[in-house]
Amino acid sequence: MNELYKMLNELIGITEAEWLTFSAKLIRREVKAKTLLVSESQVAKNIYFIESGLLRTYHLQDDKEVNSYFACDNQFIATFSSFISQTPSFENLETIDDSIVYEISYIKLHELYDEHRKFEKLGRILAEKNYMCMLDRAYLMQTKTAKQKYMDFMENYNEKIIQRLPQYHLASFLGIAPESLSRVRKEILKS
Amino acid sequence: MNELYKMLNELIGITEAEWLTFSAKLIRREVKAKTLLVSESQVAKNIYFIESGLLRTYHLQDDKEVNSYFACDNQFIATFSSFISQTPSFENLETIDDSIVYEISYIKLHELYDEHRKFEKLGRILAEKNYMCMLDRAYLMQTKTAKQKYMDFMENYNEKIIQRLPQYHLASFLGIAPESLSRVRKEILKS
Repeated sequence: MNELYKMLNELIGITEAEWLTFSAKLIRREVKAKTLLVSESQVAKNIYFIESGLLRTYHLQDDKEVNSYFACDNQFIATFSSFISQTPSFENLETIDDSIVYEISYIKLHELYDEHRKFEKLGRILAEKNYMCMLDRAYLMQTKTAKQKYMDFMENYNEKIIQRLPQYHLASFLGIAPESLSRVRKEILKS
Repeated sequence: MNELYKMLNELIGITEAEWLTFSAKLIRREVKAKTLLVSESQVAKNIYFIESGLLRTYHLQDDKEVNSYFACDNQFIATFSSFISQTPSFENLETIDDSIVYEISYIKLHELYDEHRKFEKLGRILAEKNYMCMLDRAYLMQTKTAKQKYMDFMENYNEKIIQRLPQYHLASFLGIAPESLSRVRKEILKS
């Protein structure tokens, strides 16, 4: 949990007492690969901080899985729209590898918001970061070629995700066919 | 400003004293149609609450304007990513009609965040709403047909925007050619 403490301290500067209050609300879970933590049409009850592992969010479109987000060690993941609105999720959240996560529930997070203004600030910053991430992705998907999208992924994603992610998951994330991804990778290797 | 007070009261429940603190930070501006309030590559200094009028955000893609958002009476508008990150905007914010807006600056909003935890909560809620709006739009643009996108617009947008918005602005917002929009409208009128 040391990494989570460091991250919170960077984001909102917390005291030891505040950290104790926060960490008491967390539940540590060891989760096997390919476990669904949130299913489509369920309300997302938790947000997750990843100690180790690899997870994804995805939705079904014409019976195909479309990946929308990946996260690994020391990152947050959630089906965020369902979590903040407490309405049924249109996405699934699943572990790709065996993972260890700390979950915090909607109810407990809102207790923190009420108890300490600093955690309200944390909620604002997380929502703003999610907004920026969604905007970047929407812009990328609408305006860039397959090659540009792949280059952006290689530049901006965590090294572990780049190394561990199966190619078919990446192709679905980039909105391109697996064959197009292979072609793009070959082109880049040649150049 | 009565409508802004009502909205804030619904969102965060504010006292008269808190409203006085908040409203003292606002600047009222009367702005002619087709005035740029934020230009591409500028840092967005303000967020706007619209008393009356019609505004849009848009960016340039291959020298064409692509509309990303419209707002009218009693709604907020900003080039939100630039505002929250205080980095240069990739979008423009412009009045379509003559408008009256209340602007609040980044600096003053952050003073409010520091002074009253309720305003921190407001910041969180606004960021969450922006996230949901962006997500809905990204999902709509990626998965729906021209007809579905038009139907969604007619169902979910403010009546004034539907009435006042020039068709070429709407076509660019929906990511379809003006001729396709005309065809879709004719199809719906016939059915």
